[in-house]
Amino acid sequence: MSTGFFGDITKIKYEGPDSTNPLAFRFYNPDEVVMGKRMEDHLRFAVAYWHSFAWEGADPFGGRTFDRPWFDGEMDKAKLKADVAFEMFSLLGSPYYCFHDADVRPEGATFAENTSNLNEIVDYFAQKQEETGVKLLWGTANLFSNRRFMSGASTNPDPDVFAYSAATIKTCMDATMKLGGENYVLWGGREGYETLLNTDLTRELDQMARMLHMVVEYKHKIGFKGAILVEPKPQEPTKHQYDYDVATVYGFLKKYGLEKEVQMNIEQGHAILAGHSFEHELALASSLGIFGSIDMNRNDYQSGWDTDQFPNNVPEMALAYYQVLKAGGFKSGGTNFDAKLRRQSLDAEDLLHGHIGGMDCCARGLKAAAKMVEDGALQNPLDERYAGWNQPEAQKMLRGEYSLEDIAAKVERENINPEPKSGRQEYLENVVNRYV
Amino acid sequence: MSTGFFGDITKIKYEGPDSTNPLAFRFYNPDEVVMGKRMEDHLRFAVAYWHSFAWEGADPFGGRTFDRPWFDGEMDKAKLKADVAFEMFSLLGSPYYCFHDADVRPEGATFAENTSNLNEIVDYFAQKQEETGVKLLWGTANLFSNRRFMSGASTNPDPDVFAYSAATIKTCMDATMKLGGENYVLWGGREGYETLLNTDLTRELDQMARMLHMVVEYKHKIGFKGAILVEPKPQEPTKHQYDYDVATVYGFLKKYGLEKEVQMNIEQGHAILAGHSFEHELALASSLGIFGSIDMNRNDYQSGWDTDQFPNNVPEMALAYYQVLKAGGFKSGGTNFDAKLRRQSLDAEDLLHGHIGGMDCCARGLKAAAKMVEDGALQNPLDERYAGWNQPEAQKMLRGEYSLEDIAAKVERENINPEPKSGRQEYLENVVNRYV
Amino acid sequence: MSTGFFGDITKIKYEGPDSTNPLAFRFYNPDEVVMGKRMEDHLRFAVAYWHSFAWEGADPFGGRTFDRPWFDGEMDKAKLKADVAFEMFSLLGSPYYCFHDADVRPEGATFAENTSNLNEIVDYFAQKQEETGVKLLWGTANLFSNRRFMSGASTNPDPDVFAYSAATIKTCMDATMKLGGENYVLWGGREGYETLLNTDLTRELDQMARMLHMVVEYKHKIGFKGAILVEPKPQEPTKHQYDYDVATVYGFLKKYGLEKEVQMNIEQGHAILAGHSFEHELALASSLGIFGSIDMNRNDYQSGWDTDQFPNNVPEMALAYYQVLKAGGFKSGGTNFDAKLRRQSLDAEDLLHGHIGGMDCCARGLKAAAKMVEDGALQNPLDERYAGWNQPEAQKMLRGEYSLEDIAAKVERENINPEPKSGRQEYLENVVNRYV
Amino acid sequence: MSTGFFGDITKIKYEGPDSTNPLAFRFYNPDEVVMGKRMEDHLRFAVAYWHSFAWEGADPFGGRTFDRPWFDGEMDKAKLKADVAFEMFSLLGSPYYCFHDADVRPEGATFAENTSNLNEIVDYFAQKQEETGVKLLWGTANLFSNRRFMSGASTNPDPDVFAYSAATIKTCMDATMKLGGENYVLWGGREGYETLLNTDLTRELDQMARMLHMVVEYKHKIGFKGAILVEPKPQEPTKHQYDYDVATVYGFLKKYGLEKEVQMNIEQGHAILAGHSFEHELALASSLGIFGSIDMNRNDYQSGWDTDQFPNNVPEMALAYYQVLKAGGFKSGGTNFDAKLRRQSLDAEDLLHGHIGGMDCCARGLKAAAKMVEDGALQNPLDERYAGWNQPEAQKMLRGEYSLEDIAAKVERENINPEPKSGRQEYLENVVNRYV
Repeated sequence: MSTGFFGDITKIKYEGPDSTNPLAFRFYNPDEVVMGKRMEDHLRFAVAYWHSFAWEGADPFGGRTFDRPWFDGEMDKAKLKADVAFEMFSLLGSPYYCFHDADVRPEGATFAENTSNLNEIVDYFAQKQEETGVKLLWGTANLFSNRRFMSGASTNPDPDVFAYSAATIKTCMDATMKLGGENYVLWGGREGYETLLNTDLTRELDQMARMLHMVVEYKHKIGFKGAILVEPKPQEPTKHQYDYDVATVYGFLKKYGLEKEVQMNIEQGHAILAGHSFEHELALASSLGIFGSIDMNRNDYQSGWDTDQFPNNVPEMALAYYQVLKAGGFKSGGTNFDAKLRRQSLDAEDLLHGHIGGMDCCARGLKAAAKMVEDGALQNPLDERYAGWNQPEAQKMLRGEYSLEDIAAKVERENINPEPKSGRQEYLENVVNRYV
Repeated sequence: MSTGFFGDITKIKYEGPDSTNPLAFRFYNPDEVVMGKRMEDHLRFAVAYWHSFAWEGADPFGGRTFDRPWFDGEMDKAKLKADVAFEMFSLLGSPYYCFHDADVRPEGATFAENTSNLNEIVDYFAQKQEETGVKLLWGTANLFSNRRFMSGASTNPDPDVFAYSAATIKTCMDATMKLGGENYVLWGGREGYETLLNTDLTRELDQMARMLHMVVEYKHKIGFKGAILVEPKPQEPTKHQYDYDVATVYGFLKKYGLEKEVQMNIEQGHAILAGHSFEHELALASSLGIFGSIDMNRNDYQSGWDTDQFPNNVPEMALAYYQVLKAGGFKSGGTNFDAKLRRQSLDAEDLLHGHIGGMDCCARGLKAAAKMVEDGALQNPLDERYAGWNQPEAQKMLRGEYSLEDIAAKVERENINPEPKSGRQEYLENVVNRYV
Repeated sequence: MSTGFFGDITKIKYEGPDSTNPLAFRFYNPDEVVMGKRMEDHLRFAVAYWHSFAWEGADPFGGRTFDRPWFDGEMDKAKLKADVAFEMFSLLGSPYYCFHDADVRPEGATFAENTSNLNEIVDYFAQKQEETGVKLLWGTANLFSNRRFMSGASTNPDPDVFAYSAATIKTCMDATMKLGGENYVLWGGREGYETLLNTDLTRELDQMARMLHMVVEYKHKIGFKGAILVEPKPQEPTKHQYDYDVATVYGFLKKYGLEKEVQMNIEQGHAILAGHSFEHELALASSLGIFGSIDMNRNDYQSGWDTDQFPNNVPEMALAYYQVLKAGGFKSGGTNFDAKLRRQSLDAEDLLHGHIGGMDCCARGLKAAAKMVEDGALQNPLDERYAGWNQPEAQKMLRGEYSLEDIAAKVERENINPEPKSGRQEYLENVVNRYV
Repeated sequence: MSTGFFGDITKIKYEGPDSTNPLAFRFYNPDEVVMGKRMEDHLRFAVAYWHSFAWEGADPFGGRTFDRPWFDGEMDKAKLKADVAFEMFSLLGSPYYCFHDADVRPEGATFAENTSNLNEIVDYFAQKQEETGVKLLWGTANLFSNRRFMSGASTNPDPDVFAYSAATIKTCMDATMKLGGENYVLWGGREGYETLLNTDLTRELDQMARMLHMVVEYKHKIGFKGAILVEPKPQEPTKHQYDYDVATVYGFLKKYGLEKEVQMNIEQGHAILAGHSFEHELALASSLGIFGSIDMNRNDYQSGWDTDQFPNNVPEMALAYYQVLKAGGFKSGGTNFDAKLRRQSLDAEDLLHGHIGGMDCCARGLKAAAKMVEDGALQNPLDERYAGWNQPEAQKMLRGEYSLEDIAAKVERENINPEPKSGRQEYLENVVNRYV
């Protein structure tokens, strides 16, 4: 019982690399086994409700471009939107989706009305999930679009906004729990500042920590088994966002004793805005023990704002999934598309092209990454490079058995004068190109 | 007994705002009392040995432009350099200076020779300090210029380089101690990576932490009373430097239990490269309890690398010193000029112009900042903005006496629907302009 | 007959530098004579209708924050908006304003309806201008917000959009003419591309040139005496905007023979996005003979998008007006505030604070710049630096009287081996600081 | 008679995509025919003498890392360097090389000595070319490294530096002519400014134009058949470089009547520094009729300076060569590697890895691009998108047969209200991914 939104398009199939059918996968083959696991179970794709179904195509210089039958309405339109959304999840064979409360329910006049709207749509989603087999990767609360959040949610100078935010998060955690969501995400779009002139950093960071503590406590109380994920972003909409990047969030978690309870949801576009490569953020989160999930939307390297585009550069994807595989792969996390159509891409079919292309890129990247892991193509030279540190004397030095003076004496005594060795960057880049 | 390098220029004097003498201070008046303290004691200026005396004017596309009588030599030239340097400190009335080992001693063929060269020059400096009254703000080791450090110092894949670095730091800490230095600084210019392909982040961060632990232990062992300062920088020369910014270093210190032992030396140029304003880094370090000292060299906003220029924008300086004053002012730290002449500024006099202008900018900034503090010009509106959080109910919420559910129930019960209030940014910016 | 929007606030007065009244000018004194001309006649301030009255406070992550009585309506609301706007122009004593068609008239269902709405509001404006003495600095057409322009206006792949744009421009030129506007501006917000994959650069540039030719022809036809101004911007909303910067537009004008007919409207924020300082763009436009007018809204140096903030850094303003004065000052151009309130600045008073602070900054900048010009503070050292080029032999070389061979022979013969001279940047920066 | 520098490595061979030999080509097969032309004749690879043989591995924070037997010497070392260089060209099968005068000859004390040194080495190169069959793609003069050029070459405030520069260019054009060079390049590394405070833009641009006119005149005089190429770069080493980007240089050429005589040498890294994609600069140069040659060195997207790395991202190369093929392919131009080893890549073998990997990337990119051209994969949708402009009425409008009034009348009469059509960006990105 199709909505007709996608015309007569039927389920997107894997047709192999030689296919020229734009509505087929060339690399994403859910059942293909890669490193002992089905590709679908590796990638754990999720479609983002907001950009694909709630965004209207506006940008700072122009209004709505899309023309969707579910715009401008109340509960009936919200349900039509859900019908089309789940239809698309099924067409794509995406095992998961993600949403904010504000994406899926009509906006109410009061908190109570918002909650009741959300609950009604959650029931509808539960039924849709049942029918289609599609699952919820994560839920989250939109605490940035409504004007009440303009000066922050948990970091607002007004404690009533903190309270309103806390209450909203509770309803969204309840919704996520009810729908069997596998994670709960917090992105602090307004948790930051426009100017230090009106901002008390210390107060605001304390407020933010309090909120996160309450979230963690509530998770345990209700028996939610998923991960709590924080999504770093350095700026935009605010001039400075407190969850700047993985390293910043880690320091925050350590300061407030939350580093065992919270993991990272890392986005390529946000990494780039913070001056990092995507693989840097992934590798660092893994090294710090807080890697969780990814948002697979790229930025345009020539634009200074988040462009949230579908991934399309396979070598970059390969390096990203190489880090994911090195981190042991996703546990509760997955590959969420926080990607949006270009605002000129008006057609229903464009939505499919974006996702099909993105899924195929990820699949190619994953396969290349898996092969590099299996071959030890990068790990072997790495181990060799650091081999000196496995020697007993080096290990003692690293474990703290020698003091600065001990070492200085030894350097002088043995006239240590180390000769540098090649870092072999060009060779290693060529190795990667053998796989992509 | 002048070296003659500065011709017949005599001690730079304060002549007041109306002076048009380019070799006079118009705002920096060391004995003028600001907020109950002499201006000199507030600002604690230090001249950087490296840029002013060791840098030759080269850039990536061209070689030496400066023609200094102390270039290209051994110990005698090193002493001539010291003579000119202390002469300039005295001309400027700068109470402090800062140096790396490699700035001040000839490069030896072995570690032992470097140490012995350093010790000889330290004795010479001690005598110069005695003669001039100039003091050492901080010393540091250059662990980035020699090719042995090309792949890192403490983070090198070769443990011998780690050892060599440790030994070098010991000699520099000894030198700093002997010269009565008030701080010891670590800037990890090569502690980072060019490519993740040849880098093991986890190993390297552990190595870096070990080194810092040894530094702290040695400090206590020798009874060094000054602060250990780490200087954040996001990149350059490496693609990624581990001490990216204040927030990143804080997380690192917390992870390795060093946050009580180490403070920050914050540079405007580095802040900007990391995507922050200078005042952000200052405010954050203060909020985290790790503010130490500053390097007062600006970047060019249109250049993507560290331009290390003398400060020249008074409104920016005012906002920086406002944060310094809010943090309680400098303790052991001060205002170091890690600023370099433009490579076209060939003349001895240019060195003086750079410092005089920079010191005057800082003095104007400080005076404006002090007035803002005294008037509560920014603090009063700030307190007012957050006043709601001082209410008992808000405090309880912040102290964790309510759970997410408690708050949600209250929001629903009381139908809380907060109305946003103006952030007044334009008004506050105008207030600042009243002071600069 | 006040609208009451600004409460009981009365005309903003000049009270001098010592005033602490936030609703007074401290530096902008319209009648004060600077370099032989009234300050008002130098600065020629204009308030921008769009940001101050049409923008609702939305950003890419959140909706309307402002609550204005003229939102959400038809012609009666448009007139109320005009009442408040002219009231503010009068309160501020701004001699000029600027507008787009879409800012001032309700959106119609057809082109004819748009035209008729515009004409009705133009009549209303004419009457307002009469009553208040406020004049129109420039008018322009909004060819970027409506979805029909999503793929460009003149550069659209669909010739019907070109036609629609041409027709719209005609109506806006007519409106500008009727209201005695002193310039007509074109900002090509969608004249660029999102991806080269769907873009034919050659076609689109030819289309854009055709449109500009028609504009110039129509100007002459109707006897419009003002300047045609193009406003460069490198990107945003598009990935690449054809009118990238002054140099790019100049090349375009030269290619299509329009360089005598079109001048530049230069914005600080756009300059910065293009990698330039504001003064660079001003100096270059002046050097190329195409300087026209300015938009005096700054960017935030840490944000990669146009933040369109009120100017607040006096030293930067001084360098900008120094270039304006060197270019001979404004002819038909002026200082337009293309600046918008922060979206948290909700109050009517904030609108006044933004403009008052901005006008005061500009006034301080102008006064400092004028003094520098009068003193020859920067010009004298400049003339001296290039003095060698005034020598007869150098002039001959420059005029082309010598060939490469002639010069090579001379260099060899005379063994020319030029010794570099100091560029004195630090000295010159100090000179500027004497004036700001 | 090998120098032994590359040990026992023999000529790099094409072994096909499945080869895992790091010293073999997997895609670059010189004789393979692509679109009717040998791959070698399409790509026209050239090795850059400077980075590969003259650069010592220094960066702004550290000195020489490489240890080459030809460093630190006079003419004998220059010849040894040439021996190794031509050996490498032959090992790689690179048909071309490029050089600056300062790369190849010892620095003399006078202009005459420089000339005589250059002439001696040119004779040596001529013999090497004869022996190896390697040819010169282009020569150029280094007018930026020596301190005499610190304030510009042709744009220097001192006319003697202009003269010295002119004389040097003459000797380099003579050398290029003698060696059968196919182009002559000008990169104005110091033709720009550090601060506008000491800069007269108008004078400097006039000086630069004069120099370029003399170059063109001399080219014709000596019968040099190659192209004169200008290489745009926005900044670095200077804050602002006059040859900012393709559009800027075009405007300059038009202003001074040189657009028929000069073409562009476009570098990926420089494009990115200027805020453009590489393909943008290529497409624009082609559209303006000034496309000449390319420097195929990428930047690191996270670094704000020119990193000059070997290309390694095949999808980017494909889009670049797609523009080259659309422009009709190289005429006198080619693919120069202005790429340098990472300073940690110390080994002779690293030089080969860098070039092999880069050449393979380019070859893969070219093959993908050629296939896209042959299939019309991108051109067909493009033609379709603009098809409306081929209609007679649209053509008339474009040719200027209608005025603004005519069009406005028509829009109103016919009630034209264009409905936007999808830009299909995601679909087109997927198409490209079918080829790479």
